[in-house]
Amino acid sequence: MKLHHAASSPNSRRVRIFVAEKGLSIPLVAVDLGKGEQHSDAYRAINPRRVVPTLALEDGTAIGEVPVIWRYIEETHPAPPLLGETAKEKALVAMWEWRAEVEGFATVMDAVRNAAPGLKGRAIAGPHDYEQIPKLAERSKLRVKNFFADFDDRLRETPFVAGQRFSAADITTLVTLDFAAKAINLPVPDEHRSLKRWYDTVSSRSSMAA
Amino acid sequence: MKLHHAASSPNSRRVRIFVAEKGLSIPLVAVDLGKGEQHSDAYRAINPRRVVPTLALEDGTAIGEVPVIWRYIEETHPAPPLLGETAKEKALVAMWEWRAEVEGFATVMDAVRNAAPGLKGRAIAGPHDYEQIPKLAERSKLRVKNFFADFDDRLRETPFVAGQRFSAADITTLVTLDFAAKAINLPVPDEHRSLKRWYDTVSSRSSMAA
Repeated sequence: MKLHHAASSPNSRRVRIFVAEKGLSIPLVAVDLGKGEQHSDAYRAINPRRVVPTLALEDGTAIGEVPVIWRYIEETHPAPPLLGETAKEKALVAMWEWRAEVEGFATVMDAVRNAAPGLKGRAIAGPHDYEQIPKLAERSKLRVKNFFADFDDRLRETPFVAGQRFSAADITTLVTLDFAAKAINLPVPDEHRSLKRWYDTVSSRSSMAA
Repeated sequence: MKLHHAASSPNSRRVRIFVAEKGLSIPLVAVDLGKGEQHSDAYRAINPRRVVPTLALEDGTAIGEVPVIWRYIEETHPAPPLLGETAKEKALVAMWEWRAEVEGFATVMDAVRNAAPGLKGRAIAGPHDYEQIPKLAERSKLRVKNFFADFDDRLRETPFVAGQRFSAADITTLVTLDFAAKAINLPVPDEHRSLKRWYDTVSSRSSMAA
């Protein structure tokens, strides 16, 4: 097993944190996004969507998309569980992870890609070129603020995003917060005290440096 | 277990088809979207995101988001498997389902919600109001066309979206094609012969009437 990743890619970081939480060590292969290495023939043969990360199995199978890579690792290395143990827990982790991904992570990504001067004509990662839409970048920022408020409400009720214990939903939420602060200058406002309390607890885990 | 759904909702249809493929019968509770019943206090107590479908368990737990509802049903009723059996198969089904969802289904939804006159100020489903962005509706249509072409390529190589057998990835793809034809007047072009061949095979399954 090898993980094709980029040090600066927040999606790659989501997988590196998951791997560190499992106590695993999967060999990393760096893809230089700055040099456009994701568009090379060699990388396209591994992942035709030309995005990182990709988990490459021994038999040549390439697994893309963060929650899917997580699922494969959890199936093959169940302990400690990061995607829930009972059917109900699995559903609740998946539901909160989905919300963190769609309302948080993907929304920050839209805000970045529809505004960054270096991504003109490349507003969506992948094999196709799309023009940026500045109004979408603006709307996405508003949506990120609503995401902060909604997750602050949630974390007033539970210690972790999906409930009583740390899960993959916390990984996506934490990486989203760091990504928003760094890439679109949207740190969590001080008034969201539950979200900030949760951030302090979770960001101190050693896996977060991965 | 009860499924809160709407007859006209393509996301609800994805779950109804899955349930029919399992040979299950889960009691349905209709939510009248035309009357705005999803915004009622009663429904918000079930799903604060105010979207359908929601699977309500006996203990009151509410499970939202289509792939999550599927996951819960598959965990509790494994046969026939629709999300894969081995770790690798599970990953491949999840990966192709994710692509059908993000590149296909969600993209058609963006095209609809950012243009429909009846959805002014409601461009994203859920508890928050967002203005429509007509340019996003246009860009999304272009993306749906690329999705058709990419999945036509894929289905030239394999009988079903995720590989050798029918899975949840086929359900999302089929519902996406029907949704695109009906809601944004984008039927699959004749030149995409593999995608059309696949559509004819899959749409004849009895579950598709669900």
